[in-house]
Amino acid sequence: MTGAHAPSDLLAAAREGDRVALARLLTAIENDPAAARAIAPATWTARRGYAVGVTGAPGAGKSTLTDRLIAGALARADADREPAAVGVLCVDPSSPLSGGAILGDRVRMQGHATDARVFIRSLASRGHLGGLSVAVPDALAALAAAGFDRVYVETVGVGQVELEVAATADVTCVVVPAGWGDAMQAAKAGLLEVADLFVVNKADRPGATEARRDLEQMLDLGTSRDDGWRPPVLETVATEGTGVDAVLDALEAFRAAQAGAVADRRRRDRARRLLARLVADRAARSVEELVGSGRFDAAVRRVGSGELDPYTAVDGLVE
Amino acid sequence: MTGAHAPSDLLAAAREGDRVALARLLTAIENDPAAARAIAPATWTARRGYAVGVTGAPGAGKSTLTDRLIAGALARADADREPAAVGVLCVDPSSPLSGGAILGDRVRMQGHATDARVFIRSLASRGHLGGLSVAVPDALAALAAAGFDRVYVETVGVGQVELEVAATADVTCVVVPAGWGDAMQAAKAGLLEVADLFVVNKADRPGATEARRDLEQMLDLGTSRDDGWRPPVLETVATEGTGVDAVLDALEAFRAAQAGAVADRRRRDRARRLLARLVADRAARSVEELVGSGRFDAAVRRVGSGELDPYTAVDGLVE
Repeated sequence: MTGAHAPSDLLAAAREGDRVALARLLTAIENDPAAARAIAPATWTARRGYAVGVTGAPGAGKSTLTDRLIAGALARADADREPAAVGVLCVDPSSPLSGGAILGDRVRMQGHATDARVFIRSLASRGHLGGLSVAVPDALAALAAAGFDRVYVETVGVGQVELEVAATADVTCVVVPAGWGDAMQAAKAGLLEVADLFVVNKADRPGATEARRDLEQMLDLGTSRDDGWRPPVLETVATEGTGVDAVLDALEAFRAAQAGAVADRRRRDRARRLLARLVADRAARSVEELVGSGRFDAAVRRVGSGELDPYTAVDGLVE
Repeated sequence: MTGAHAPSDLLAAAREGDRVALARLLTAIENDPAAARAIAPATWTARRGYAVGVTGAPGAGKSTLTDRLIAGALARADADREPAAVGVLCVDPSSPLSGGAILGDRVRMQGHATDARVFIRSLASRGHLGGLSVAVPDALAALAAAGFDRVYVETVGVGQVELEVAATADVTCVVVPAGWGDAMQAAKAGLLEVADLFVVNKADRPGATEARRDLEQMLDLGTSRDDGWRPPVLETVATEGTGVDAVLDALEAFRAAQAGAVADRRRRDRARRLLARLVADRAARSVEELVGSGRFDAAVRRVGSGELDPYTAVDGLVE
């Protein structure tokens, strides 16, 4: 890459395969809303990638499973003699780390770090309005523009931010450990709504059958999806690679089933959520600016002294 | 009153002493933001009243105490041969009742209902954006404009809405029952911040001294107020009228201590909170309208199809 660090230069270099430029571009997207905006017209309208969300409770083995899914995807591309470019976004809203740090147990993914076909990046910023739920879609658009057909988005935990991030993926795989027991937890945590695929990992341990049965029962009791898809419940032992091929098959089956109108609608729903959030963020910023302004202080004084009523004051402020 | 129900006509009639018109005006303020707006230029810039907030945990005896404070205020006016006009706003955000209904144990206040110098009204609406925290200041302005020099604002419970409402009063009296025990509850509930005066009611029961001591200790440990006032902690037996005169004296002492610059700053702080809320409400309404519009749907389709990036779409929507 050149010495220039303008986002558009970084994007151009990333498109030529410059991974350092790509890493810097993602840092800019994560930390600087202005940089994210600057390249959005180019990235969002470029070729479209496919994002696989991997989420679930801590300790379920998400990182190991993601690691195996990457290896499997690369092996399939090799068998088909096709080129592959797999991205991984590790999203950890609870971590203060950022700037490309690889977090905790994710280090094991570094087995792929020397593979030129794999690009791994962590996002942990809460730095600006909208935070991760805005940064992740932008990062996905940038990765797609840089040629990554498939990106795994792995999130930590099952909080609100994780669910929002999961909702930005094209398919969401929810991972639970064997022995997880109470499937009602999944419903409570909102997992049922976002799961396109359940994986019971560590299936060589006690409780795998029970966890699977609980999830199936929960799906039986729930209302059927309007896209007609019933999330399969698969068992894996990610540490040994057992069951991973079936997960890859299920992901492909889902993608095929969703092609056309269903996928379009899903993309539109996603765009709607993102636009609504951006509009709300912008309104919140305008309010913040106004309330911090001298004009606002002047209006406060006039209302406080009984010279002006609050409605007329607000009319004057927001006109 | 005349047959006309325009808010301005109701206000004019209320100023002439028409209590039915005043009740209708408060109903309009509570339920119809447009009516509240329409009369605000006249009420907010009219003569200023003095609002005494009475808040605290359920069962503390707030209604009985308020009842006694009204009686005491009227007796003092009689002794001074001065005219009196005392308003009471009973604020119950948890109640679905509205439209002037007198709630539960407040019926006992009806002892004053036949006294032409007392006007009692309940507010319970959650009907519009901002809800009670906007309706109460408007109602206070209307009561002041109609000649009520003093209005008691009694709230139920110690939730967020109650604290907001308490913050609209000129002085806030926090009532706790004897035996209330853990003063830390007051700090946790945010009472310490809003209390200008603590009343330990039911002081003939066990635990009065302990409750008082706990509150004093809490005040000792807290940072001193920047207006230099230390909230007194008084004991009452409201059912028998014991200690009520001392509360009235403390309210007068606070008012005298706050006269001038301190009271001005308090009014400005109140105006600031109200304006910030009105600005935020208006922004929220704009966002809601925009997100429900056909223009928004069109932008969603263009972003969903990859024709347009979300930032450019939002620029177009909010310009």
